[in-house]
Amino acid sequence: MDYRFSDKLASLKPSAIREIFKSLTDPSIIAFAAGNPAAESFPVDEMAEISKEIYETEAAAALQYGTTEGYLPLRRAISERQRAKYGIGKTADDGYGFEDTTIIVSGGNQGLELTCKAFCNEGDAVICEDPSFIGALNAFRSNGAVTLGVPLREDGIDTEALEEMLRTEKRAKLLYLIPTFQNPAGITSTLENRKKVYELAKKYEIMILEDNPYGELRFAGEDVPTYKSFDTEGIVVYCSSFSKILSSGMRIGYLTAPEAVIQKIVVAKQVEDVHTNLFFQMLCHRYMTGHDFDGHIQDVRAIYRRKCGIMLDALDKELPGELRYTRPEGGLFIWCTLPESIDMNEYVKRCLKKKVALVPGSAFTPVPGAPCNSVRMSYSTATDEQIVSGCRILGEIAREMLAEKA
Amino acid sequence: MDYRFSDKLASLKPSAIREIFKSLTDPSIIAFAAGNPAAESFPVDEMAEISKEIYETEAAAALQYGTTEGYLPLRRAISERQRAKYGIGKTADDGYGFEDTTIIVSGGNQGLELTCKAFCNEGDAVICEDPSFIGALNAFRSNGAVTLGVPLREDGIDTEALEEMLRTEKRAKLLYLIPTFQNPAGITSTLENRKKVYELAKKYEIMILEDNPYGELRFAGEDVPTYKSFDTEGIVVYCSSFSKILSSGMRIGYLTAPEAVIQKIVVAKQVEDVHTNLFFQMLCHRYMTGHDFDGHIQDVRAIYRRKCGIMLDALDKELPGELRYTRPEGGLFIWCTLPESIDMNEYVKRCLKKKVALVPGSAFTPVPGAPCNSVRMSYSTATDEQIVSGCRILGEIAREMLAEKA
Repeated sequence: MDYRFSDKLASLKPSAIREIFKSLTDPSIIAFAAGNPAAESFPVDEMAEISKEIYETEAAAALQYGTTEGYLPLRRAISERQRAKYGIGKTADDGYGFEDTTIIVSGGNQGLELTCKAFCNEGDAVICEDPSFIGALNAFRSNGAVTLGVPLREDGIDTEALEEMLRTEKRAKLLYLIPTFQNPAGITSTLENRKKVYELAKKYEIMILEDNPYGELRFAGEDVPTYKSFDTEGIVVYCSSFSKILSSGMRIGYLTAPEAVIQKIVVAKQVEDVHTNLFFQMLCHRYMTGHDFDGHIQDVRAIYRRKCGIMLDALDKELPGELRYTRPEGGLFIWCTLPESIDMNEYVKRCLKKKVALVPGSAFTPVPGAPCNSVRMSYSTATDEQIVSGCRILGEIAREMLAEKA
Repeated sequence: MDYRFSDKLASLKPSAIREIFKSLTDPSIIAFAAGNPAAESFPVDEMAEISKEIYETEAAAALQYGTTEGYLPLRRAISERQRAKYGIGKTADDGYGFEDTTIIVSGGNQGLELTCKAFCNEGDAVICEDPSFIGALNAFRSNGAVTLGVPLREDGIDTEALEEMLRTEKRAKLLYLIPTFQNPAGITSTLENRKKVYELAKKYEIMILEDNPYGELRFAGEDVPTYKSFDTEGIVVYCSSFSKILSSGMRIGYLTAPEAVIQKIVVAKQVEDVHTNLFFQMLCHRYMTGHDFDGHIQDVRAIYRRKCGIMLDALDKELPGELRYTRPEGGLFIWCTLPESIDMNEYVKRCLKKKVALVPGSAFTPVPGAPCNSVRMSYSTATDEQIVSGCRILGEIAREMLAEKA
């Protein structure tokens, strides 16, 4: 049988990261490639206890169909927390012309995919930071959207290049940004950059899709306000999740946007999976309201502060000066840029041969095939010893390749 | 802000059923409308016990990211069971030119949506039984596909009308069928009908999407072989789920199709939700392999046998002869066709006023706005007393409306 598949999936390959993830079942490999949260960050005992409570007190509701928008007490708990803590969520009572609403999605990735589906026709474009999150890029492409890249600088997306693109690119419907602890680059854009970008979005009437899965994982420096917190026009769709805080395997994320946008997204979600696993929605609600959620987040931050510190120390010690890398204040990722004399793909290949897995930066270019000589590395799942020995190997191979070119 | 949404969602309205479901929070309403499984069908104690085991023995794996294809032991357990019990799943070893593979999806609805995404470009068509499942119709439409209807007869889809459509309709990419305990009509197509339809699909080279969420719920008569069981050409994508057997709220379904098709669908799933809730995948596996799964299914069948019997008895007693209704041998639904002299929408409205909720049949027409004078009713969640008193009201209103026209 010669299957005739749809065009929009023709260009899509399985995500390089997910493929690498599958190969990571080999325990001898040092997993700097995966974006998995640290297993010790899951509050297993509390989750077990809450699960028991749910079975004892509301099993029939937890196992039955729920509403597409999500479990109302959880939606409320998220709204209240992010409003109190981060100023997210405008209401008509605040005097705005729109009413932000929060719904539950099956992991942050679904939130991104649904937002694209709600706004983009085939051939429309999503402007992304270059580099950007591969899962989002593929989600946009699967809707037939074109992904365009604007260079990411140390302070955030390049605003001049962005304005030029907004001015000339009539197909652009969405501006996709990961402003905090960016994946893959680990960069947090400045407030000044954010304000400039927001003004551009307003001027060129483009929706901002703000992806913030790592925002709670700040282990150094000060919070920078989210786009959503200063969204006076109702042009920001804000997406986050519990994946890096409670559990990634449960697939619980959330989306906050003006009610009119949410209505469209709910219709799109309904046809995808009807609703998100209800039992774990209830679990998240009970965890947020009945346990020390903020205390737990502090514990998770401490895990990554320590791990990131170990990796940065090891990189400082082991890597030759020709390699540059970001120094994140939170999140899971370090972005390392190789000198021109080192071929990135060859470097990744040699590292994997020595049992250190990295993600080739080319996986993250919005325009497929665009040049990239960087790699993404994560400190989240490797042990302390693995981080140290892995960085030693990264240094050895870099020196070896530099010597070959010298 | 004047939001510019995508065209493909423009025509989509929230599913009438889901909207009615939301209104069903009023406990005084007799819920013949919802397609929810009976709460007493959930094996709560066993699920609680298994959950405890998972937390105790493999919490870190259960709460971490998993593969898009799904939890391998569950995929294997499903494959083995459906092969042994229903002859589903061909392999190269059997001498076929393809290898059927099973993956996990986030509820059956996602399986239908993903299959459409894999095969249909915008403007392509999906041929459906008329009436057909609203959730599937909307899933197809959300991918920009056109839904076309072929009348459903007592023995299955009208094969003459189907051939005519296959001959003339060049946009047709998928043939969507719910051959067993059809939703909404409650009809099970005969083997003769299925064989004829399969030959047509072969002849006109169209993929069959076989949706079988209710197949395990047979409480009378004999099993009819699924399309997938006699799929020698690799042209059937088979979709089913645990929603009506273990729990609908957990959102666990599965899809069996030739490997080449599955690969495309996995790419599409990866961008939607990365993977399905892993904890409950593990739970399903443990339930299937460590508990009396088939015994439980017998118990669930007994619940619906009893409830369906009560409703049919009540309808036989209460409804005037002008109303015709199906007598299902399994599943959750009865399809009741009103005489021309009763306006369907008015009937549904009056019943709701008397606190009996039905789904207007017009929700299930593949071509929006096509005439339909039937209603769907379910016996799954109402109590015995509610079924009896609800049917009495259905009869009263029917007689009242017939008298008005007389």
